[in-house]
Amino acid sequence: MPQDRVLVTGGAGCIGSDLAAALLEQGRQVTVFDNLSSGRPEHIEGLLDRPGFRFVRGDLLDGAALDSAMEAADTVFHLAANPDVKFTHGDPTDKDLQQNTICTYRLLESMRLHGVKRLAFSSTSAVYGVSARQPIPEDAPTRPISLYGATKLSCEAMIGAFQNLFEMDCWIFRFANIVGSKVRRTGRTVIGDFIARLSEDPARLKILGNGRQAKSYLLAAECVEAILFAMDRSPRGLQTFNLGCGDNVSVERIARMTVEAMGLEARFEYTGGEGGWPGDVPRFTLDVSAINRLGWRARHTSEQAVALAIEATLTQSSWRTPCR
Amino acid sequence: MPQDRVLVTGGAGCIGSDLAAALLEQGRQVTVFDNLSSGRPEHIEGLLDRPGFRFVRGDLLDGAALDSAMEAADTVFHLAANPDVKFTHGDPTDKDLQQNTICTYRLLESMRLHGVKRLAFSSTSAVYGVSARQPIPEDAPTRPISLYGATKLSCEAMIGAFQNLFEMDCWIFRFANIVGSKVRRTGRTVIGDFIARLSEDPARLKILGNGRQAKSYLLAAECVEAILFAMDRSPRGLQTFNLGCGDNVSVERIARMTVEAMGLEARFEYTGGEGGWPGDVPRFTLDVSAINRLGWRARHTSEQAVALAIEATLTQSSWRTPCR
Repeated sequence: MPQDRVLVTGGAGCIGSDLAAALLEQGRQVTVFDNLSSGRPEHIEGLLDRPGFRFVRGDLLDGAALDSAMEAADTVFHLAANPDVKFTHGDPTDKDLQQNTICTYRLLESMRLHGVKRLAFSSTSAVYGVSARQPIPEDAPTRPISLYGATKLSCEAMIGAFQNLFEMDCWIFRFANIVGSKVRRTGRTVIGDFIARLSEDPARLKILGNGRQAKSYLLAAECVEAILFAMDRSPRGLQTFNLGCGDNVSVERIARMTVEAMGLEARFEYTGGEGGWPGDVPRFTLDVSAINRLGWRARHTSEQAVALAIEATLTQSSWRTPCR
Repeated sequence: MPQDRVLVTGGAGCIGSDLAAALLEQGRQVTVFDNLSSGRPEHIEGLLDRPGFRFVRGDLLDGAALDSAMEAADTVFHLAANPDVKFTHGDPTDKDLQQNTICTYRLLESMRLHGVKRLAFSSTSAVYGVSARQPIPEDAPTRPISLYGATKLSCEAMIGAFQNLFEMDCWIFRFANIVGSKVRRTGRTVIGDFIARLSEDPARLKILGNGRQAKSYLLAAECVEAILFAMDRSPRGLQTFNLGCGDNVSVERIARMTVEAMGLEARFEYTGGEGGWPGDVPRFTLDVSAINRLGWRARHTSEQAVALAIEATLTQSSWRTPCR
């Protein structure tokens, strides 16, 4: 079976490590390629001794390391990216360009040189920007307002060009906000942010924006399931799917759920404004009818997914060894 | 007037030099920034002694040169790009990434550092790829199939992010095929290609593809006019306009027109296939109702524009000093 050998970039990340485990379950040979800049060795600890598993600590900008990992691949799952969606004035403006656009080009070029023809890519709902169409279908205009969204769209565009020029099969997955037991606790996701703040000061909770932001959420485990499902069932060529559950939940509601789950009675303090940070898309719901039509449907609403992620983050051991 | 000082990247190119001349006519101070990799000194020869004109030979990847040019700017017209739309297997795959995506990032970052807030960008109809909607409106899905189109879309996306994050005013112009008296004769445009081939062998003409490709064309002079018109009349923020004339003309028709204009009777030989080269979008017509609604309309059809360009290329002195 020619798709037996897979390369998972960012495979030590929150989603990538779940994906690597699922691929091993399917009997594939799995190489995880990760520079551990945001991925964690703990996430793949349980996989290291599994037959068919290999971990390569490497950077996508290191051509030799990448080429060597690519030699043993038939299919690439490209999840490596700058995970820091938030932009703060004063941040370097080229981090997303480097880690998303340029790394993805390097990956595509390495695939081309090694004749690797199948690629799944983790894109984002941020490519749409502030969309007039809600829920947002895949053919809505893409007008990102953040460097993260812009560079992910750049990756999508390059993937489309390579797919056409070099006859590849490519799947672009535009993720809702992905949550799970490995959720980060450094303020990079709303759940991690809230738990971290409440752990420091249980009496009050700072909420970025006016709290009325509302977004689609999806469990990491279901995200992985949907990726594998779509690749099995959809035609060859270039496929683009929104991955989410088709509804949304507000930031204020998530704050209440977190406070409740921690047994606290914190006072909310809002920083104000529509978005939580520069480039934040305050409200969106993904139209997931394309993946639904294919036969896959999320088993949890956005609110249920968030509730499970809060619970898992508070109780599981991965809470004590979060993504940095 | 704060928009008095303008920087034109790629200002020694076929369109950029017309734009620089028009801006001088308006009484602006004009700095042309060009590395002359495809631009030609002849194109700006007539401008060198004009008051308010300055030429800087520099590369966008040379930060010091760019920063020094940026210091004297209020508005940037960014036309510098890899002009080589055609991709041939064996070409390097990162030329467009370097010259479009990365150069545009560098430009945006230099603008940000110097507080320059107004940008006009030369994008392309190639961002749409093969569109189901014809004529193609600006909100049609963007699914480029060439590296040229993909990297231009990357530029658009980054411009949108910078516009939002740093409160700029940006105009994105998606050009039809632009033709004029300075049309290139090296096979990079269909007219230049045909004239060059017929000059070598007047008895036969090789036509890339099946000849049924049909695209929208616009004269460079009208393109320049539309850019300046749109920037004067449209609201601030981020604006995207298709620039063209709303119809199309086929490659075979252009071949016949060229042969006729040269007084020849050449036999046509087709290389076959839908597109002329890998990544070519065989047929498209731009929906130009947005720029029409603003009050601007092309004065020539695609066929008329092509006829004028053939005539000008055959007769004007610029024919003897073409773009490289």
